[in-house]
Amino acid sequence: MKIQPVIMSGGAGTRLWPMSRAARPKQFLKLVTDKTMFQETALRVAPQTDDAFSPPVVIAGAGHGAVIADQLAEIDILPGEIILEPAPRNTAAVAAVASAWVEAHGEDALILLMPADHHIEDAARFRRAVSLAARAAEDGFIMTFGIKANRPHTGYGYIEAGETISDGVCRVAAFKEKPDKKTAQSYLDKGGFYWNAGIFLFRASDMLGELEKHAPEIRKAATDALAESVMSGAARRLDEDRFAACPANSIDYAVMEKTDRAAVVAPVDVGWTDIGSWSEVASQSGAPDIVDLGDRNIIRTDGTVVAAAGVSDLIIIATGDAVLVARKDNAQEVRAVVEELKKRGREDLL
Amino acid sequence: MKIQPVIMSGGAGTRLWPMSRAARPKQFLKLVTDKTMFQETALRVAPQTDDAFSPPVVIAGAGHGAVIADQLAEIDILPGEIILEPAPRNTAAVAAVASAWVEAHGEDALILLMPADHHIEDAARFRRAVSLAARAAEDGFIMTFGIKANRPHTGYGYIEAGETISDGVCRVAAFKEKPDKKTAQSYLDKGGFYWNAGIFLFRASDMLGELEKHAPEIRKAATDALAESVMSGAARRLDEDRFAACPANSIDYAVMEKTDRAAVVAPVDVGWTDIGSWSEVASQSGAPDIVDLGDRNIIRTDGTVVAAAGVSDLIIIATGDAVLVARKDNAQEVRAVVEELKKRGREDLL
Repeated sequence: MKIQPVIMSGGAGTRLWPMSRAARPKQFLKLVTDKTMFQETALRVAPQTDDAFSPPVVIAGAGHGAVIADQLAEIDILPGEIILEPAPRNTAAVAAVASAWVEAHGEDALILLMPADHHIEDAARFRRAVSLAARAAEDGFIMTFGIKANRPHTGYGYIEAGETISDGVCRVAAFKEKPDKKTAQSYLDKGGFYWNAGIFLFRASDMLGELEKHAPEIRKAATDALAESVMSGAARRLDEDRFAACPANSIDYAVMEKTDRAAVVAPVDVGWTDIGSWSEVASQSGAPDIVDLGDRNIIRTDGTVVAAAGVSDLIIIATGDAVLVARKDNAQEVRAVVEELKKRGREDLL
Repeated sequence: MKIQPVIMSGGAGTRLWPMSRAARPKQFLKLVTDKTMFQETALRVAPQTDDAFSPPVVIAGAGHGAVIADQLAEIDILPGEIILEPAPRNTAAVAAVASAWVEAHGEDALILLMPADHHIEDAARFRRAVSLAARAAEDGFIMTFGIKANRPHTGYGYIEAGETISDGVCRVAAFKEKPDKKTAQSYLDKGGFYWNAGIFLFRASDMLGELEKHAPEIRKAATDALAESVMSGAARRLDEDRFAACPANSIDYAVMEKTDRAAVVAPVDVGWTDIGSWSEVASQSGAPDIVDLGDRNIIRTDGTVVAAAGVSDLIIIATGDAVLVARKDNAQEVRAVVEELKKRGREDLL
């Protein structure tokens, strides 16, 4: 059975300011490799890598059609479709649009729904996990991916594995919100808890069925918005009024926590990271434009020379028009900077 | 008797990198007020402020004729002369050239020799100290200015005052090199020790006489270089070969530590600072291009937005092409950065 990759590229991504901007969120930046995170996501499941995969569908923010087309062209991938959301409506709407799109294309394919901005070290091993998940999805399960938790991370949600279905596949016993440090440590100690990668694999008809059961307004609005979509350049634009009517909810809340079909492939050990803040990005210390005379700093630059003298554990990010200096252990403060710039009316920098 | 201000503008000033550059050392930057330090120096002794002063002579590095002419024009000061050194030869040569220039202009004026890159808070009080010094200089003393030491600064040289000559004027008992912390504290405890401002006041003929006695090669080379100087645009350029023959020495070593005419006006309490590193520069925290969510940082920018989140006691300096991040208590490390950039052949940034 064919797998239809659907890349969710709706993130606004101000957490990696000043490099990520409204016009160019983090998935479109070269943060880890010499390709952007969006390109890496597409290449991970490219038809030329594994013919189980159809050309990818990308569901993205209204302003990102051109950057997506350009970035796919750069890596010689022809998309199945680029679908633009007139406004963001969270991941349940994306799952609904993706499922309706597959249904409209006349086949009940499996959908592999993936965020565009996650890093995965070992793509081959990830594809093996996808194969395993695909067999369970063919049996009607809505699959999640349980990443092997190697430290008590408090920035991720967790999946508690339940009854074994088959080798490496279990039912989901519970989804757990981002825990505090102590709870996270208890998950590690107990075992059977995995990081929720936010990646899903399911049959289109199963997702539409579960949406009908648990979130019928989302199914209807998304299906209507797709039915009345129009082509705009290289992309398909969802109908604005129809999509505006769609409740904004995550696929986790709207479907996964309610369905009895939730299952998990685990442990998935592929070097997965949700690059959620600068502290998770590697430094470019060897770069010619960086003079780092300090210790353990994360320094990135777009071309401006950055010199750090006698400082340690800092994040220093320089673009042509903005510089951020923050503490590695407090990378979330970037949000406060972005808020302050908003307050000052500096949308030009966001 | 007229006082001829001579502004020494030979500093290369990489200590304030990345704002200070070879082409624009710190004296030409607006670091403290809305005027450059060079402009503040010229205005402090402008003929329009006090008619005791003749139009200033500026002795500067070869590449700085135009910036000096421009900056003087901006503040409506017509220079007595702009004299350019083909290569730097330290302050004794400058004192010799200045004295020879005054002599060549047919009058034995007093020369007030001042670095272009010092900040003085209270210009009126400084001029009163100059008046006091002038009376002693007319009696043949080579005057220094002893700044009231309000903390055990280890970055300045000290003057130990000796026998009183008149009210507020003493002979110099000794010049002291930059002391360690303990010695500096002992100076403060004992009293009678002052910061050496590096400002001098003397009769041209007295300086030439002392140079003849203690450093005749400097006197000869400097006098010859001036005699064979040529006009080049708005500036007078010292003869390259003649000036190259001049030994490079400071006025302190070449003359002041040897002469028996050394005296000091003290205490001079005018809010004097030798802005020698970023830690002595005030932050522009209120500026629209700065978002400082940290504590006690010194942030300066040329227009790039700088955001500091959760960091404290840092120096963050941003120009169009370079960013410096250093610790306030370790501002001297900037030299190491400049050295590293030299090693990498990045003269474009120096």
